[in-house]
Amino acid sequence: MSNRIIWTYDWVPEGPRGFVRDLRLRWACEEAGLDYAVQTVPSDDRGSDHFAHQPFGQIPFLSDDGIELFESGAGLLHLARKSETLMPRDPVGQAQTLQWTIAALNSIEMVSVPWWFLEITGAKENGLTGWLEGRLAHLEAVLKEREWLAADRFTVADLLMADVLRVEKLRAFGDRPSTESYVARITDRLAFKKAYADQMAHFANADKTRA
Amino acid sequence: MSNRIIWTYDWVPEGPRGFVRDLRLRWACEEAGLDYAVQTVPSDDRGSDHFAHQPFGQIPFLSDDGIELFESGAGLLHLARKSETLMPRDPVGQAQTLQWTIAALNSIEMVSVPWWFLEITGAKENGLTGWLEGRLAHLEAVLKEREWLAADRFTVADLLMADVLRVEKLRAFGDRPSTESYVARITDRLAFKKAYADQMAHFANADKTRA
Repeated sequence: MSNRIIWTYDWVPEGPRGFVRDLRLRWACEEAGLDYAVQTVPSDDRGSDHFAHQPFGQIPFLSDDGIELFESGAGLLHLARKSETLMPRDPVGQAQTLQWTIAALNSIEMVSVPWWFLEITGAKENGLTGWLEGRLAHLEAVLKEREWLAADRFTVADLLMADVLRVEKLRAFGDRPSTESYVARITDRLAFKKAYADQMAHFANADKTRA
Repeated sequence: MSNRIIWTYDWVPEGPRGFVRDLRLRWACEEAGLDYAVQTVPSDDRGSDHFAHQPFGQIPFLSDDGIELFESGAGLLHLARKSETLMPRDPVGQAQTLQWTIAALNSIEMVSVPWWFLEITGAKENGLTGWLEGRLAHLEAVLKEREWLAADRFTVADLLMADVLRVEKLRAFGDRPSTESYVARITDRLAFKKAYADQMAHFANADKTRA
């Protein structure tokens, strides 16, 4: 049994499959060749034990040889310190990786996830659309000029930003060719495909148990 | 002249004063006794030079002895690696500080800032209210049980979480006594008061130049 455990839900409906955030940690471990096991908490009944590990009742959380972390972004930065594949070792490269990881969480996802939430909950008008357009336009300008966000190479910042951007509603919204080719390029990596297939299989297996 | 420069706007209207995010970096430097200077970019005319430093046209960004970082959260984690005052040195304490710093950005602010944005832009119904209530209730349950978020001591995670929570609209929304006393306690620190007064003075001085 690995000393590194990624915790996710035992089951989710079909809609979110392929987008549940344990995928980010699976993907990072696959990129870096870090061994891991996947364990589950009940999604239907989020009890006090779950909240003791993740105080917002969400997943993923990561157990790593005596260290426990919730927040997928924190898990990614933790794993990045273990592997040069995920983050360069020089201070400038580390700073760039850190800033773009936080930008994915707090400049893009801080607008895109609430925008998406308002879309799927059927808000009559989505008051975040203009703000989202601005953020994605700025990012498109960045991606027009470079292949990777940080340090002229793949880092965990690309993993996270591509995961944030690959949400279908977001991709269908507006025409941003550089962003689109960036997402296609990053999600064409074998480590993403493995992590994605493993998550889909995990929940498909859970269907059989529930049936 | 310090080798550490916090960049902010030359001027902002009265509304956001005291909440402009250079305050987070000033506060962290004051806590840690790290020297710094403040320099400015024009807020009215955000040119290509500004976007070269901060691709979303925002502030703050930090120059630190050859390293440059945008995103206040990234700047805080960068500074935290320079000072034990901001983050413990042991791996478990570091992991806890990291997870709660990311939680402030991606579990709380990801909901609270768009909620606030919809409030101030006069959305007829705020579709994020229920989600925000849930997140703040979970955080209240955490703060009811402990004085600090991470490692049983003040860390940069408290600095950031208190800064996220001290927004007036958010504090006026719902009754969360443990959160309220947490925010009052953290913002009672001398380093916060110094950073706040300095930001207010910075923009007040700018009024004189514009007049």
